[in-house]
Amino acid sequence: MTFHYPNGKRYVAAAVDTAASKSKDKKWSYGKRGMTLEEDINETNQYYLDQGLAVIHKKPTPVQIVDVNYPKRSAAVIKEAYFKQASTTDYNGVYKGRYIDFEAKETKLETSFPLKNFHVHQIEHMKQVVRHGAICFVLLRFSLADEVYYLEAKHLLAFWQRMLDGGRKSITKTEVENLGCLIPLGFQPRINYIKVINNLYHL
Amino acid sequence: MTFHYPNGKRYVAAAVDTAASKSKDKKWSYGKRGMTLEEDINETNQYYLDQGLAVIHKKPTPVQIVDVNYPKRSAAVIKEAYFKQASTTDYNGVYKGRYIDFEAKETKLETSFPLKNFHVHQIEHMKQVVRHGAICFVLLRFSLADEVYYLEAKHLLAFWQRMLDGGRKSITKTEVENLGCLIPLGFQPRINYIKVINNLYHL
Repeated sequence: MTFHYPNGKRYVAAAVDTAASKSKDKKWSYGKRGMTLEEDINETNQYYLDQGLAVIHKKPTPVQIVDVNYPKRSAAVIKEAYFKQASTTDYNGVYKGRYIDFEAKETKLETSFPLKNFHVHQIEHMKQVVRHGAICFVLLRFSLADEVYYLEAKHLLAFWQRMLDGGRKSITKTEVENLGCLIPLGFQPRINYIKVINNLYHL
Repeated sequence: MTFHYPNGKRYVAAAVDTAASKSKDKKWSYGKRGMTLEEDINETNQYYLDQGLAVIHKKPTPVQIVDVNYPKRSAAVIKEAYFKQASTTDYNGVYKGRYIDFEAKETKLETSFPLKNFHVHQIEHMKQVVRHGAICFVLLRFSLADEVYYLEAKHLLAFWQRMLDGGRKSITKTEVENLGCLIPLGFQPRINYIKVINNLYHL
């Protein structure tokens, strides 16, 4: 048995065996917020899928494949490849017939969210899908406070434009609080962003 | 200058330098149907994007990355990776606010389209998105006839069920002709599947 002296912070178990803790024991270690934002969203999407609520997937990481080996009697091995810049956001899918499209980012800053977290391509993509009637947004996580906000793409695009016009290169926390919607973190689903969609779009 | 004796067939230039012809000369070599179905669809999607008609992208090939090198002063190199089975279809996006989802496959057979071209995961995915109100379909190319058909997912799912019930493992060409919609191949866009969507869904 291990003792932990109180230090005013929540006890965070040391990561012992990441391979094991990543698989089956996940559900028992929720208290430990070692989960990444991506893992939380993937589990949320899996929950939506299992419950028949929505079909939303993360897109695979785009990779430029240069060299592949085809060994006899075993799977092809990619021997040389490079990460490519994504031309879209990471997540998309369908909810009640509507096209859903979003990106998720986090910051360790406490009072603002830097816009450099987004790439020009992603911003352009968001503009395009918004024009075509998508439900498009970003999930912004302030990791130190462990808060996740839903911010509609139209607001992000306005802040991006403010930056292009010579304004600040970030969104203040207050702006996120005022224009975004704080998503209470839960067990299942972890980040219930569909609830926000229901409210915003009366679905 | 080269002479070509008439043989009743359209003249097809020999592929000389694929690397070059794949890049800049593409627009000049349309007569040569060496284009793959994927290239045709990508160009169609690019046309829709450029014209502001729809935002539809091919998803990146899913890859399981095992080993990455981070050399100093240059880009990360993936040294070992494996192809993963896709859990969704290849193409999705938004058109007039609606969620679009499809897969494209081709066969060299002339009288039927084998169902083994589809994976169970893709079929399951199509079932799910159809349930959520997606516009979901497959583009089936009979390469020898150079014909591309739009077939609604509901029909494909019915043929898949027929196979599971012990029926034939393919869709006959006649069935594709009767239930699907032949898409006239064009220059821009090459495979104008949105026209079919407009007719089917009165958009």
